[in-house]
Amino acid sequence: MRRLFQEDLQNLGEQLIEITHLVSKAMERAYQAFETADVQLADEVIAADAAIDRQQVELDEKAIELLALQGPVASDLRMIVGALRMSTSLERMGDLARHIAQLVRLRYPDLVSPPELQHIYAQMAEHTISIADRLATLLENRELHLVSEITALNDQINQLHASVFAAIAAEEWHASAATTADVTLTSRYFERFGDHGVSVARKVDYLVTGDWDSRGE
Amino acid sequence: MRRLFQEDLQNLGEQLIEITHLVSKAMERAYQAFETADVQLADEVIAADAAIDRQQVELDEKAIELLALQGPVASDLRMIVGALRMSTSLERMGDLARHIAQLVRLRYPDLVSPPELQHIYAQMAEHTISIADRLATLLENRELHLVSEITALNDQINQLHASVFAAIAAEEWHASAATTADVTLTSRYFERFGDHGVSVARKVDYLVTGDWDSRGE
Repeated sequence: MRRLFQEDLQNLGEQLIEITHLVSKAMERAYQAFETADVQLADEVIAADAAIDRQQVELDEKAIELLALQGPVASDLRMIVGALRMSTSLERMGDLARHIAQLVRLRYPDLVSPPELQHIYAQMAEHTISIADRLATLLENRELHLVSEITALNDQINQLHASVFAAIAAEEWHASAATTADVTLTSRYFERFGDHGVSVARKVDYLVTGDWDSRGE
Repeated sequence: MRRLFQEDLQNLGEQLIEITHLVSKAMERAYQAFETADVQLADEVIAADAAIDRQQVELDEKAIELLALQGPVASDLRMIVGALRMSTSLERMGDLARHIAQLVRLRYPDLVSPPELQHIYAQMAEHTISIADRLATLLENRELHLVSEITALNDQINQLHASVFAAIAAEEWHASAATTADVTLTSRYFERFGDHGVSVARKVDYLVTGDWDSRGE
C-alpha cells in the first residue's frame, strides 16, 4: 500500500512536469504565431489549450483521490495540496498563451504588434519560455537555484512590460488606438505568465524547504 | 471530536464569506476612487488588500490543518479542497480591485477614464460588486439560483468589456495612447473579477450538487 502511494505521488509530480512542458510549448508556438501572423499555428495553439485543461482536471481528480484514500500527512500532504495549487497556475499560463494566439487570429492577416515593439515582445517571449522550461526542470530535480533564476527572469519581464507603456506614452507613438489596446493586453499576458511562473516556483521552494515566503505573491 | 470538526468546517465557510465581503468592499471603494479620482481612498484600498491576503493565508493554513488532522473524506473533503480553491480566486479578486486603485493613484489628479466611457465603467462596477455580494449570499445559503444570476451578470460584464474595445476602435476616439492603455487594463480588471466570481460560484454549485460542470472555466 505504502509503496503504491509513493508511486502515485511520483505520478502526480510527473503529470505536473508534463503539463509544464505543454505550457512551455504553447507559449513558444503562440509567440511564433504572433511574430509571423501565422493564423494556422494560432488556431493550433487555441485548440491545444483544451488538452492542458483536461490534464489539469485529471491531475486534480487524482490529487483529491489520494487525499481521500490515503489521508496523507506532513510532507506528502503538502506535496498533494501544492500540486493542486500549481496546476491552477499552470492551467492559467496555458490560457495566457491562448489569449496571445487569439489576438493573432483577431488581427490576421495583420501583425498584432507594430514593428517598433517587436524586439520587446521577442525578449518577453524568450523569458517566459525560459521560465516555463526552468519550471519543468525545477519540478524534476528540485534544484533551488532555479527559483532565483525564474524570479530574475520575471524581473526582466516586468521591466520589458514597463518599457511597452513607455513606448505607448512617447511622442513618436502613432499606432491606432486598437493597436494600442492590443499591445497593452499582449504585454499584460506575458507579464501574468511570468508572475504565475514565479508563483509555481515559490511553491516548489516551499515543498523543499518548508519555508513559506509569501512576499510579493 | 466529530462535533469539533463540524465546527471547524463551519468556521472555514464563515471565513470564506468574510473574505468575500472584504472583496466586495474593496471593489466598491476602488470604483468610488476611480470615479472621483480620490487618491486617498485609492491608497486605503491598496493598503486594505494586505488584509485580504492575510485572511487567505490563514484560511489556507486552517484548511490544510484540517486535512492533516482529520483525514476527511467525501463531502467534507470536497468542501475543504473547494475552500482552498475559492480562496485563491477571492484573493485574486482583491488584487484586481487593488489594480484599479493603483491606476487611480498613477493618474491622480486626472481621472483614469475619459468622460465618454464613465457610464460603461459605472455599469461594470455595479455588476462586479453585485457578483461579489451574491457570492457572499451563495456561500451562506447555497441557493443555486444565485449561480445563474452571477453568470448572467458576468455575461453583461463581457458585453460591456467588448463595448470598451468598440469605443476605442471608433473614429470618434481621440484620447491619448496612455489613456487608451489605461482604459483597456481597467476593463480587463473588471472582466477578470467577474470571471473569478463565476469560477467561485461554480465551485459552490459543485459542492452542493456534486456535478462538476467545467465548461468555460
